[in-house]
Amino acid sequence: MYISETRIRTRYAETDQMGYVYYGNYAQYFEVGRVEAMRNLGMSYRDLEGSGILLPVVSFNINFLKPALYDENLSIITKISTKPTVRLIFDYETYNEQDELLNTASTTLVFVNKIKNKPCPPPKEFMELFKPYF
Amino acid sequence: MYISETRIRTRYAETDQMGYVYYGNYAQYFEVGRVEAMRNLGMSYRDLEGSGILLPVVSFNINFLKPALYDENLSIITKISTKPTVRLIFDYETYNEQDELLNTASTTLVFVNKIKNKPCPPPKEFMELFKPYF
Amino acid sequence: MYISETRIRTRYAETDQMGYVYYGNYAQYFEVGRVEAMRNLGMSYRDLEGSGILLPVVSFNINFLKPALYDENLSIITKISTKPTVRLIFDYETYNEQDELLNTASTTLVFVNKIKNKPCPPPKEFMELFKPYF
Amino acid sequence: MYISETRIRTRYAETDQMGYVYYGNYAQYFEVGRVEAMRNLGMSYRDLEGSGILLPVVSFNINFLKPALYDENLSIITKISTKPTVRLIFDYETYNEQDELLNTASTTLVFVNKIKNKPCPPPKEFMELFKPYF
Repeated sequence: MYISETRIRTRYAETDQMGYVYYGNYAQYFEVGRVEAMRNLGMSYRDLEGSGILLPVVSFNINFLKPALYDENLSIITKISTKPTVRLIFDYETYNEQDELLNTASTTLVFVNKIKNKPCPPPKEFMELFKPYF
Repeated sequence: MYISETRIRTRYAETDQMGYVYYGNYAQYFEVGRVEAMRNLGMSYRDLEGSGILLPVVSFNINFLKPALYDENLSIITKISTKPTVRLIFDYETYNEQDELLNTASTTLVFVNKIKNKPCPPPKEFMELFKPYF
Repeated sequence: MYISETRIRTRYAETDQMGYVYYGNYAQYFEVGRVEAMRNLGMSYRDLEGSGILLPVVSFNINFLKPALYDENLSIITKISTKPTVRLIFDYETYNEQDELLNTASTTLVFVNKIKNKPCPPPKEFMELFKPYF
Repeated sequence: MYISETRIRTRYAETDQMGYVYYGNYAQYFEVGRVEAMRNLGMSYRDLEGSGILLPVVSFNINFLKPALYDENLSIITKISTKPTVRLIFDYETYNEQDELLNTASTTLVFVNKIKNKPCPPPKEFMELFKPYF
């Protein structure tokens, strides 16, 4: 299992008139979570895309326990629990500054060859980085 | 069962550098879908909130089949299949102009008394509107 | 002068915890305003981009008089007052349902040849559409 | 004059299909810039709002020189050049990792008493913090 933590401070723009972070904004937070998880592992998502591989999200689910509020410095815990195949699964937990669990979530992404526009196996260098973890 | 259709034209702001509508933006489209579904039924979400009842989302899941592109006039099909209790469940289907199914999704919302900050049953007038459907 | 009106209903996602539409969201509303203005004139921005011409924004300014609120059906008035050259200038006015002026704004866009990545004159067909107005 | 620097990494969500950060997203970056500028000075915007004072934006303008791209670690320079009155003016400059100036911008905000819903002078503690700078 590979685990990474990212801090994200909530923006005023991201709140809604309930005073909560809008439920749709967590998709962005988890994007940041998984991009930083990959960077910490040694793989830049920007470079991956530059090499002709896209990683679109094919499913996303989230369960909300408590809302995040304005100007909170959230902790996004990002986990890869299963060895990547053509599919790459990330699980997430969001905690506020009081270390309360706000929500749990999961996304499934698929490696896609940009030119062929078809699913493909992950690049070898990417799989190498996972060796210590699986 | 209650079904409603809403049209949403995708904005340039909502695309990403893959040329797709960013996966996180559908949460907004489904917000529009359910608010218009409620309005068509005879209930304004704005008025509901004005009467002291909030409807936060407690879970959201989405499965992506195909991406939406820029300037597409999407059709969001919003369904309420089960009689509302303290929980209100919406199912969604997104179609593009070629009538291709792009994704399916579901959100669960909870009626919350704003002052008590606690879950509560749906207002009577809201339940009245559902009588023809359940 | 060419004038076009577009209606935009404000989304919950677009409000902030002041209960106002977040100041940064009007850039999207004006994008919709100018794209619909061009469509009404007979030119699809999607097609324009498909033909190899981009129209990035090079300046944007906005003055706020009153905030827009949730679920308001705004009227965006979009004007082209000067004949397009390599630059295309749009002026905007936003009105709420009570016909109160909420803000005034302006954007300057530049025609850019996608391949050469350089400013270019507007396409002839586009200039033709303006003939009745200037 | 008071100057502060904030780093913001651009998100995939913030790009558009031109491969640029969408022009409307800078409003959020400047919100982060001024909130961090105020925090560095010793004033939390969250606390300010908690004390009953709002700071809505009354005007915003931006001139774009070059676009920001995905995953760039931008530098937002935020300046307060004039002593705050009922109006608080922030100027901004955005630089990319190659230290190229991407855009310059300015926002004017007004101190508003939340209960009276009227403009008001800035709090004394806030003005105290500015003493070394003006």
